[in-house]
Amino acid sequence: MYTLHYAPGAASQLVHVALLECGAPYRLERVDLEGGQQHGTAYRALNPHGHVPTLIVDGRPQHECAALAMLLAERHPDAALAPAPGTAERADYLELMLYLANSVQPAFRHWFYPQEAGGDPEAVKTAAAARIESAWQHLATRLASAGPWLLGRSFSLVDPYATMLMRWSRHLPRPAPAFAPLAELAARVTARPAWRRAAEIEGLPAWP
Amino acid sequence: MYTLHYAPGAASQLVHVALLECGAPYRLERVDLEGGQQHGTAYRALNPHGHVPTLIVDGRPQHECAALAMLLAERHPDAALAPAPGTAERADYLELMLYLANSVQPAFRHWFYPQEAGGDPEAVKTAAAARIESAWQHLATRLASAGPWLLGRSFSLVDPYATMLMRWSRHLPRPAPAFAPLAELAARVTARPAWRRAAEIEGLPAWP
Repeated sequence: MYTLHYAPGAASQLVHVALLECGAPYRLERVDLEGGQQHGTAYRALNPHGHVPTLIVDGRPQHECAALAMLLAERHPDAALAPAPGTAERADYLELMLYLANSVQPAFRHWFYPQEAGGDPEAVKTAAAARIESAWQHLATRLASAGPWLLGRSFSLVDPYATMLMRWSRHLPRPAPAFAPLAELAARVTARPAWRRAAEIEGLPAWP
Repeated sequence: MYTLHYAPGAASQLVHVALLECGAPYRLERVDLEGGQQHGTAYRALNPHGHVPTLIVDGRPQHECAALAMLLAERHPDAALAPAPGTAERADYLELMLYLANSVQPAFRHWFYPQEAGGDPEAVKTAAAARIESAWQHLATRLASAGPWLLGRSFSLVDPYATMLMRWSRHLPRPAPAFAPLAELAARVTARPAWRRAAEIEGLPAWP
Protein backbone atom coordinates (compact mmCIF):
# COMPACT_ATOMS: atom_id res chain seq x y z
CA MET A 1 0.00 0.00 0.00
CA TYR A 2 1.37 3.38 -1.06
CA THR A 3 0.27 6.76 0.28
CA LEU A 4 0.50 9.70 -2.11
CA HIS A 5 0.59 13.23 -0.71
CA TYR A 6 -0.69 15.27 -3.63
CA ALA A 7 -2.30 18.47 -4.80
CA PRO A 8 -4.71 18.52 -7.76
CA GLY A 9 -2.90 19.06 -11.05
CA ALA A 10 0.53 19.47 -9.40
CA ALA A 11 3.63 17.37 -10.12
CA SER A 12 2.01 14.63 -8.05
CA GLN A 13 -0.29 13.94 -11.01
CA LEU A 14 2.39 11.87 -12.78
CA VAL A 15 2.76 9.64 -9.71
CA HIS A 16 -1.01 9.35 -9.38
CA VAL A 17 -1.31 8.27 -13.02
CA ALA A 18 1.59 5.82 -12.61
CA LEU A 19 -0.07 4.25 -9.53
CA LEU A 20 -3.27 3.75 -11.54
CA GLU A 21 -1.39 2.44 -14.59
CA CYS A 22 0.29 -0.10 -12.27
CA GLY A 23 -2.93 -1.10 -10.60
CA ALA A 24 -1.12 -0.66 -7.28
CA PRO A 25 -3.14 -0.16 -4.08
CA TYR A 26 -2.77 3.37 -2.73
CA ARG A 27 -4.45 5.99 -0.65
CA LEU A 28 -4.36 9.76 -1.10
CA GLU A 29 -3.60 12.61 1.27
CA ARG A 30 -4.38 16.02 -0.15
CA VAL A 31 -1.94 18.85 0.63
CA ASP A 32 -3.58 22.27 0.72
CA LEU A 33 -1.04 24.33 -1.24
CA GLU A 34 -3.21 27.46 -1.24
CA GLY A 35 -3.49 27.24 2.54
CA GLY A 36 0.28 26.77 2.89
CA GLN A 37 0.07 23.27 4.37
CA GLN A 38 3.30 22.35 2.50
CA HIS A 39 5.21 24.78 4.73
CA GLY A 40 3.79 23.40 7.99
CA THR A 41 5.76 21.31 10.43
CA ALA A 42 3.83 18.12 9.75
CA TYR A 43 4.38 18.17 5.99
CA ARG A 44 7.99 19.39 6.28
CA ALA A 45 8.70 16.30 8.37
CA LEU A 46 7.67 14.25 5.32
CA ASN A 47 9.28 16.52 2.73
CA PRO A 48 11.92 19.05 3.86
CA HIS A 49 11.59 20.99 0.59
CA GLY A 50 7.85 21.47 1.07
CA HIS A 51 7.05 20.17 -2.41
CA VAL A 52 4.45 17.70 -3.63
CA PRO A 53 4.53 14.81 -4.30
CA THR A 54 5.64 12.74 -1.37
CA LEU A 55 5.04 9.00 -1.75
CA ILE A 56 5.23 6.73 1.27
CA VAL A 57 7.01 3.58 0.09
CA ASP A 58 7.49 0.74 2.57
CA GLY A 59 6.81 3.23 5.35
CA ARG A 60 9.38 5.83 4.22
CA PRO A 61 8.67 9.21 2.58
CA GLN A 62 10.23 9.49 -0.90
CA HIS A 63 10.28 12.44 -3.30
CA GLU A 64 10.83 13.76 -6.85
CA CYS A 65 7.98 13.03 -9.23
CA ALA A 66 10.08 11.54 -12.04
CA ALA A 67 12.05 9.36 -9.60
CA LEU A 68 8.85 8.11 -7.97
CA ALA A 69 7.29 7.23 -11.32
CA MET A 70 10.48 5.41 -12.36
CA LEU A 71 10.48 3.54 -9.05
CA LEU A 72 6.87 2.44 -9.55
CA ALA A 73 7.71 1.25 -13.08
CA GLU A 74 10.48 -0.93 -11.60
CA ARG A 75 8.37 -2.29 -8.77
CA HIS A 76 5.46 -3.14 -11.08
CA PRO A 77 7.11 -4.45 -14.24
CA ASP A 78 3.91 -6.10 -15.50
CA ALA A 79 2.49 -2.63 -16.18
CA ALA A 80 5.21 -2.12 -18.81
CA LEU A 81 5.61 1.59 -18.04
CA ALA A 82 9.27 1.55 -19.08
CA PRO A 83 11.38 -0.41 -21.54
CA ALA A 84 13.25 -3.15 -19.68
CA PRO A 85 16.95 -2.59 -18.92
CA GLY A 86 19.03 -3.91 -21.80
CA THR A 87 16.51 -3.06 -24.51
CA ALA A 88 17.31 -0.64 -27.32
CA GLU A 89 14.68 1.84 -26.07
CA ARG A 90 16.13 2.05 -22.58
CA ALA A 91 18.63 4.83 -23.35
CA ASP A 92 15.89 7.00 -24.86
CA TYR A 93 13.63 6.34 -21.88
CA LEU A 94 16.25 7.52 -19.37
CA GLU A 95 17.26 10.44 -21.59
CA LEU A 96 13.73 11.76 -22.04
CA MET A 97 12.76 11.32 -18.38
CA LEU A 98 15.83 13.31 -17.40
CA TYR A 99 15.29 15.89 -20.12
CA LEU A 100 11.75 16.58 -18.91
CA ALA A 101 12.96 16.66 -15.30
CA ASN A 102 15.94 18.95 -15.70
CA SER A 103 15.03 21.19 -18.63
CA VAL A 104 11.27 21.42 -19.00
CA GLN A 105 9.97 21.13 -15.43
CA PRO A 106 12.44 23.71 -13.97
CA ALA A 107 11.40 26.18 -16.69
CA PHE A 108 7.81 25.84 -15.47
CA ARG A 109 8.96 26.53 -11.93
CA HIS A 110 10.28 29.86 -13.22
CA TRP A 111 7.03 30.54 -15.07
CA PHE A 112 4.94 29.91 -11.96
CA TYR A 113 7.35 31.35 -9.35
CA PRO A 114 9.46 33.91 -11.27
CA GLN A 115 10.54 35.66 -8.07
CA GLU A 116 12.62 32.57 -7.18
CA ALA A 117 14.87 33.19 -10.20
CA GLY A 118 15.81 36.73 -9.14
CA GLY A 119 15.55 39.80 -11.36
CA ASP A 120 12.49 41.17 -13.08
CA PRO A 121 9.62 38.63 -12.88
CA GLU A 122 8.22 39.49 -16.30
CA ALA A 123 11.60 39.02 -17.98
CA VAL A 124 12.01 35.69 -16.17
CA LYS A 125 8.57 34.54 -17.34
CA THR A 126 9.29 35.56 -20.92
CA ALA A 127 12.57 33.61 -20.92
CA ALA A 128 10.92 30.59 -19.28
CA ALA A 129 8.13 30.56 -21.87
CA ALA A 130 10.73 30.65 -24.66
CA ARG A 131 12.59 27.68 -23.16
CA ILE A 132 9.33 25.76 -22.80
CA GLU A 133 8.32 26.46 -26.42
CA SER A 134 11.71 25.30 -27.57
CA ALA A 135 11.12 22.03 -25.68
CA TRP A 136 7.73 21.60 -27.38
CA GLN A 137 9.40 22.06 -30.75
CA HIS A 138 12.00 19.43 -29.83
CA LEU A 139 9.39 16.90 -28.71
CA ALA A 140 7.10 17.61 -31.67
CA THR A 141 9.97 17.00 -34.09
CA ARG A 142 10.72 13.73 -32.36
CA LEU A 143 7.09 12.59 -32.47
CA ALA A 144 6.70 13.57 -36.11
CA SER A 145 9.67 11.43 -37.09
CA ALA A 146 9.06 8.43 -34.80
CA GLY A 147 5.69 8.39 -33.03
CA PRO A 148 3.01 7.82 -32.04
CA TRP A 149 4.48 7.71 -28.51
CA LEU A 150 7.59 9.58 -27.40
CA LEU A 151 9.59 6.35 -27.39
CA GLY A 152 8.11 5.28 -30.73
CA ARG A 153 5.83 2.28 -30.87
CA SER A 154 5.24 1.79 -27.14
CA PHE A 155 3.62 3.86 -24.43
CA SER A 156 5.89 4.64 -21.46
CA LEU A 157 6.06 6.97 -18.47
CA VAL A 158 7.58 9.60 -20.72
CA ASP A 159 4.16 10.16 -22.30
CA PRO A 160 2.13 11.06 -19.20
CA TYR A 161 5.11 13.04 -17.84
CA ALA A 162 5.22 15.14 -21.01
CA THR A 163 1.44 15.41 -21.02
CA MET A 164 1.32 16.64 -17.42
CA LEU A 165 3.83 19.34 -18.33
CA MET A 166 1.94 20.17 -21.54
CA ARG A 167 -1.18 20.73 -19.45
CA TRP A 168 0.76 23.24 -17.35
CA SER A 169 1.33 25.30 -20.51
CA ARG A 170 -2.36 26.04 -21.07
CA HIS A 171 -1.97 29.70 -20.03
CA LEU A 172 1.33 30.25 -21.81
CA PRO A 173 1.47 32.40 -24.96
CA ARG A 174 1.77 29.24 -27.08
CA PRO A 175 0.37 26.17 -25.31
CA ALA A 176 1.76 22.77 -26.24
CA PRO A 177 -1.31 21.62 -28.27
CA ALA A 178 -0.52 24.38 -30.77
CA PHE A 179 2.06 21.86 -32.02
CA ALA A 180 0.01 19.23 -33.87
CA PRO A 181 2.07 16.17 -32.85
CA LEU A 182 1.78 17.22 -29.21
CA ALA A 183 -1.98 17.70 -29.48
CA GLU A 184 -2.20 14.15 -30.82
CA LEU A 185 -0.05 12.81 -28.01
CA ALA A 186 -2.13 14.63 -25.38
CA ALA A 187 -5.30 13.17 -26.89
CA ARG A 188 -3.86 9.65 -26.73
CA VAL A 189 -2.60 9.96 -23.17
CA THR A 190 -5.69 11.65 -21.76
CA ALA A 191 -7.90 8.94 -23.30
CA ARG A 192 -6.23 6.26 -21.20
CA PRO A 193 -8.25 5.04 -18.21
CA ALA A 194 -5.48 5.82 -15.71
CA TRP A 195 -5.21 9.47 -16.78
CA ARG A 196 -9.00 9.87 -16.84
CA ARG A 197 -9.43 8.33 -13.42
CA ALA A 198 -6.66 10.44 -11.85
CA ALA A 199 -8.12 13.61 -13.38
CA GLU A 200 -11.57 12.69 -12.08
CA ILE A 201 -10.32 11.97 -8.55
CA GLU A 202 -8.27 15.19 -8.51
CA GLY A 203 -11.23 17.16 -9.86
CA LEU A 204 -9.40 18.58 -12.88
CA PRO A 205 -11.37 20.33 -15.63
CA ALA A 206 -11.38 18.70 -19.07
CA TRP A 207 -8.16 19.21 -21.01
CA PRO A 208 -7.08 19.59 -23.75
CA MET B 1 32.97 0.52 -27.30
CA TYR B 2 31.50 3.85 -26.25
CA THR B 3 32.50 7.27 -27.60
CA LEU B 4 32.16 10.20 -25.21
CA HIS B 5 31.96 13.72 -26.61
CA TYR B 6 33.18 15.81 -23.70
CA ALA B 7 34.67 19.07 -22.53
CA PRO B 8 37.08 19.19 -19.57
CA GLY B 9 35.25 19.67 -16.28
CA ALA B 10 31.81 19.98 -17.93
CA ALA B 11 28.78 17.76 -17.21
CA SER B 12 30.50 15.08 -19.28
CA GLN B 13 32.81 14.47 -16.32
CA LEU B 14 30.21 12.32 -14.55
CA VAL B 15 29.91 10.09 -17.62
CA HIS B 16 33.69 9.91 -17.94
CA VAL B 17 34.02 8.85 -14.30
CA ALA B 18 31.21 6.31 -14.72
CA LEU B 19 32.92 4.79 -17.78
CA LEU B 20 36.12 4.39 -15.78
CA GLU B 21 34.30 3.02 -12.72
CA CYS B 22 32.69 0.43 -15.04
CA GLY B 23 35.96 -0.46 -16.72
CA ALA B 24 34.13 -0.08 -20.04
CA PRO B 25 36.13 0.47 -23.24
CA TYR B 26 35.65 3.99 -24.58
CA ARG B 27 37.24 6.65 -26.66
CA LEU B 28 37.03 10.41 -26.21
CA GLU B 29 36.17 13.24 -28.60
CA ARG B 30 36.84 16.68 -27.17
CA VAL B 31 34.30 19.41 -27.96
CA ASP B 32 35.83 22.89 -28.06
CA LEU B 33 33.21 24.86 -26.10
CA GLU B 34 35.29 28.07 -26.11
CA GLY B 35 35.56 27.85 -29.90
CA GLY B 36 31.80 27.27 -30.23
CA GLN B 37 32.13 23.76 -31.70
CA GLN B 38 28.96 22.75 -29.84
CA HIS B 39 26.97 25.10 -32.08
CA GLY B 40 28.43 23.77 -35.32
CA THR B 41 26.53 21.61 -37.78
CA ALA B 42 28.56 18.48 -37.09
CA TYR B 43 28.01 18.52 -33.33
CA ARG B 44 24.36 19.62 -33.62
CA ALA B 45 23.75 16.52 -35.71
CA LEU B 46 24.85 14.51 -32.66
CA ASN B 47 23.16 16.71 -30.07
CA PRO B 48 20.45 19.16 -31.19
CA HIS B 49 20.71 21.12 -27.92
CA GLY B 50 24.43 21.71 -28.41
CA HIS B 51 25.28 20.45 -24.92
CA VAL B 52 27.95 18.08 -23.70
CA PRO B 53 27.98 15.18 -23.02
CA THR B 54 26.94 13.07 -25.96
CA LEU B 55 27.65 9.37 -25.57
CA ILE B 56 27.55 7.08 -28.58
CA VAL B 57 25.87 3.87 -27.40
CA ASP B 58 25.47 1.03 -29.88
CA GLY B 59 26.07 3.52 -32.67
CA ARG B 60 23.44 6.03 -31.54
CA PRO B 61 24.02 9.43 -29.90
CA GLN B 62 22.47 9.68 -26.43
CA HIS B 63 22.30 12.63 -24.03
CA GLU B 64 21.72 13.92 -20.48
CA CYS B 65 24.59 13.30 -18.09
CA ALA B 66 22.53 11.75 -15.29
CA ALA B 67 20.64 9.50 -17.72
CA LEU B 68 23.87 8.35 -19.35
CA ALA B 69 25.46 7.52 -16.01
CA MET B 70 22.34 5.59 -14.95
CA LEU B 71 22.40 3.74 -18.27
CA LEU B 72 26.04 2.76 -17.76
CA ALA B 73 25.24 1.54 -14.24
CA GLU B 74 22.54 -0.73 -15.71
CA ARG B 75 24.71 -2.02 -18.53
CA HIS B 76 27.64 -2.78 -16.23
CA PRO B 77 26.02 -4.13 -13.07
CA ASP B 78 29.26 -5.68 -11.82
CA ALA B 79 30.59 -2.17 -11.15
CA ALA B 80 27.84 -1.74 -8.51
CA LEU B 81 27.32 1.94 -9.28
CA ALA B 82 23.67 1.81 -8.23
CA PRO B 83 21.61 -0.23 -5.77
CA ALA B 84 19.84 -3.03 -7.64
CA PRO B 85 16.13 -2.60 -8.39
CA GLY B 86 14.09 -3.99 -5.51
CA THR B 87 16.59 -3.04 -2.80
CA ALA B 88 15.70 -0.65 -0.01
CA GLU B 89 18.25 1.91 -1.24
CA ARG B 90 16.79 2.08 -4.75
CA ALA B 91 14.21 4.78 -3.98
CA ASP B 92 16.87 7.04 -2.46
CA TYR B 93 19.15 6.45 -5.44
CA LEU B 94 16.51 7.53 -7.95
CA GLU B 95 15.39 10.43 -5.75
CA LEU B 96 18.89 11.85 -5.30
CA MET B 97 19.88 11.44 -8.95
CA LEU B 98 16.73 13.34 -9.95
CA TYR B 99 17.19 15.95 -7.22
CA LEU B 100 20.70 16.73 -8.44
CA ALA B 101 19.49 16.77 -12.04
CA ASN B 102 16.44 18.97 -11.65
CA SER B 103 17.28 21.23 -8.72
CA VAL B 104 21.03 21.59 -8.36
CA GLN B 105 22.34 21.34 -11.92
CA PRO B 106 19.79 23.84 -13.38
CA ALA B 107 20.75 26.35 -10.67
CA PHE B 108 24.35 26.11 -11.90
CA ARG B 109 23.17 26.76 -15.43
CA HIS B 110 21.74 30.07 -14.15
CA TRP B 111 24.95 30.82 -12.30
CA PHE B 112 27.09 30.26 -15.41
CA TYR B 113 24.62 31.62 -18.02
CA PRO B 114 22.44 34.11 -16.10
CA GLN B 115 21.30 35.81 -19.29
CA GLU B 116 19.31 32.67 -20.19
CA ALA B 117 17.05 33.21 -17.17
CA GLY B 118 15.97 36.69 -18.23
CA GLY B 119 16.14 39.74 -15.97
CA ASP B 120 19.16 41.26 -14.29
CA PRO B 121 22.12 38.83 -14.51
CA GLU B 122 23.50 39.75 -11.08
CA ALA B 123 20.13 39.16 -9.40
CA VAL B 124 19.82 35.82 -11.22
CA LYS B 125 23.30 34.79 -10.05
CA THR B 126 22.56 35.79 -6.46
CA ALA B 127 19.35 33.74 -6.45
CA ALA B 128 21.09 30.77 -8.09
CA ALA B 129 23.88 30.84 -5.49
CA ALA B 130 21.29 30.85 -2.71
CA ARG B 131 19.51 27.82 -4.20
CA ILE B 132 22.84 26.00 -4.54
CA GLU B 133 23.82 26.74 -0.94
CA SER B 134 20.46 25.47 0.20
CA ALA B 135 21.16 22.22 -1.67
CA TRP B 136 24.55 21.90 0.03
CA GLN B 137 22.88 22.31 3.39
CA HIS B 138 20.36 19.61 2.49
CA LEU B 139 23.05 17.15 1.36
CA ALA B 140 25.33 17.94 4.32
CA THR B 141 22.48 17.24 6.74
CA ARG B 142 21.83 13.95 5.02
CA LEU B 143 25.50 12.93 5.14
CA ALA B 144 25.85 13.92 8.78
CA SER B 145 22.95 11.68 9.75
CA ALA B 146 23.64 8.70 7.47
CA GLY B 147 27.03 8.76 5.70
CA PRO B 148 29.70 8.27 4.71
CA TRP B 149 28.24 8.12 1.18
CA LEU B 150 25.07 9.88 0.07
CA LEU B 151 23.18 6.59 0.06
CA GLY B 152 24.71 5.58 3.40
CA ARG B 153 27.05 2.64 3.54
CA SER B 154 27.69 2.17 -0.19
CA PHE B 155 29.23 4.29 -2.89
CA SER B 156 26.95 4.99 -5.87
CA LEU B 157 26.70 7.32 -8.87
CA VAL B 158 25.09 9.90 -6.61
CA ASP B 159 28.50 10.56 -5.03
CA PRO B 160 30.50 11.52 -8.14
CA TYR B 161 27.46 13.40 -9.49
CA ALA B 162 27.27 15.51 -6.33
CA THR B 163 31.05 15.90 -6.32
CA MET B 164 31.13 17.12 -9.91
CA LEU B 165 28.52 19.75 -9.02
CA MET B 166 30.39 20.64 -5.81
CA ARG B 167 33.48 21.28 -7.90
CA TRP B 168 31.47 23.73 -10.00
CA SER B 169 30.82 25.79 -6.85
CA ARG B 170 34.48 26.63 -6.29
CA HIS B 171 33.99 30.29 -7.33
CA LEU B 172 30.67 30.75 -5.54
CA PRO B 173 30.47 32.89 -2.40
CA ARG B 174 30.27 29.73 -0.29
CA PRO B 175 31.77 26.69 -2.05
CA ALA B 176 30.49 23.25 -1.11
CA PRO B 177 33.60 22.21 0.91
CA ALA B 178 32.72 24.95 3.41
CA PHE B 179 30.23 22.35 4.65
CA ALA B 180 32.36 19.79 6.52
CA PRO B 181 30.38 16.67 5.50
CA LEU B 182 30.65 17.72 1.86
CA ALA B 183 34.39 18.32 2.14
CA GLU B 184 34.72 14.78 3.49
CA LEU B 185 32.61 13.37 0.67
CA ALA B 186 34.64 15.25 -1.95
CA ALA B 187 37.87 13.90 -0.44
CA ARG B 188 36.53 10.33 -0.59
CA VAL B 189 35.26 10.59 -4.16
CA THR B 190 38.29 12.38 -5.57
CA ALA B 191 40.58 9.74 -4.02
CA ARG B 192 38.98 7.02 -6.14
CA PRO B 193 41.07 5.84 -9.12
CA ALA B 194 38.26 6.54 -11.62
CA TRP B 195 37.88 10.18 -10.55
CA ARG B 196 41.65 10.70 -10.48
CA ARG B 197 42.13 9.18 -13.90
CA ALA B 198 39.28 11.19 -15.47
CA ALA B 199 40.64 14.40 -13.96
CA GLU B 200 44.12 13.60 -15.24
CA ILE B 201 42.90 12.83 -18.78
CA GLU B 202 40.73 15.99 -18.81
CA GLY B 203 43.64 18.05 -17.48
CA LEU B 204 41.77 19.42 -14.46
CA PRO B 205 43.70 21.23 -11.71
CA ALA B 206 43.76 19.61 -8.27
CA TRP B 207 40.51 20.02 -6.31
CA PRO B 208 39.39 20.35 -3.59
